[in-house]
Amino acid sequence: MGLFSKPIKTLDDLFVHLLQDIYYAEHQIAKALPTMIEGASNTQLREAFQSHLQETQGQISRLEEVFRMHGVEVQGVTCEAIDGILKEARHVMSDVGDPDVLQAAMLASAQAVEHYEIARYGTMIALARQLGRRDCASVLEQTLAEEKATDEKLSRLATSSINREAA
Amino acid sequence: MGLFSKPIKTLDDLFVHLLQDIYYAEHQIAKALPTMIEGASNTQLREAFQSHLQETQGQISRLEEVFRMHGVEVQGVTCEAIDGILKEARHVMSDVGDPDVLQAAMLASAQAVEHYEIARYGTMIALARQLGRRDCASVLEQTLAEEKATDEKLSRLATSSINREAA
Repeated sequence: MGLFSKPIKTLDDLFVHLLQDIYYAEHQIAKALPTMIEGASNTQLREAFQSHLQETQGQISRLEEVFRMHGVEVQGVTCEAIDGILKEARHVMSDVGDPDVLQAAMLASAQAVEHYEIARYGTMIALARQLGRRDCASVLEQTLAEEKATDEKLSRLATSSINREAA
Repeated sequence: MGLFSKPIKTLDDLFVHLLQDIYYAEHQIAKALPTMIEGASNTQLREAFQSHLQETQGQISRLEEVFRMHGVEVQGVTCEAIDGILKEARHVMSDVGDPDVLQAAMLASAQAVEHYEIARYGTMIALARQLGRRDCASVLEQTLAEEKATDEKLSRLATSSINREAA
């Protein structure tokens, strides 16, 4: 994990690079979630983070399946985007004193993470189809559906309880 | 621009922090787009980047309007998330040799940027409403609609031409 990528010459190389990138990203997210769960005093938010941690572990397994289906070694490359998103999340969280405002800040950070994943899985599905790998696209579509559902769940939490309690 | 943020004690502080964060992010995006335009050999992609640069300038003006409406000084804070996303975009672009594959890589990077903005504007709109600032929410909604439209345009480009040419 965390290796530098090799030159990208073909669309297939780009697909594999993005697989490695999101594989690293999912691991970083799985590492970050226990701190989020610990900080979530709002029950619904804690449950959302707990269920997303389980989902993330399943998504990592699915990526390993795609690596194997595509005949390439399972490995990650450093994803500077997710590193930046998570670094900012940690900084914002450490700047917040009030526990109710912290819930809103964590929710905001979680949605930034979800949208990065939505963008990446969307791109990988389009590339997989273009490469004639509908099998890989189909596995990745399951994850994209989960990411979108998590984002919608977080949006509902934002409007229904978290922000109201923090106001 | 690029100042460190102050402690976040209230939901209002969080809203202002996110305004400052996205204000910095929009400026970084405006700085990055000319390089993307220059590298876009695909006419439709170049036009999409050119129109997004114009939109970004309008979005910066809208943020300045929201700062004023909310009675706070117009200023940015370093957004480590967008810095990471753009750093990764530059690295991936520099790893790609083939011009057609480069179009697909730039498209992927642009969609990661769009989704960061979609997440942030979504959060800010929810916070503005919670704070009773429907006027600010309404201005931010215009930008969110533009970001979503740009993302959809890029998705259509991915499936209609760019990836096909690169395959």
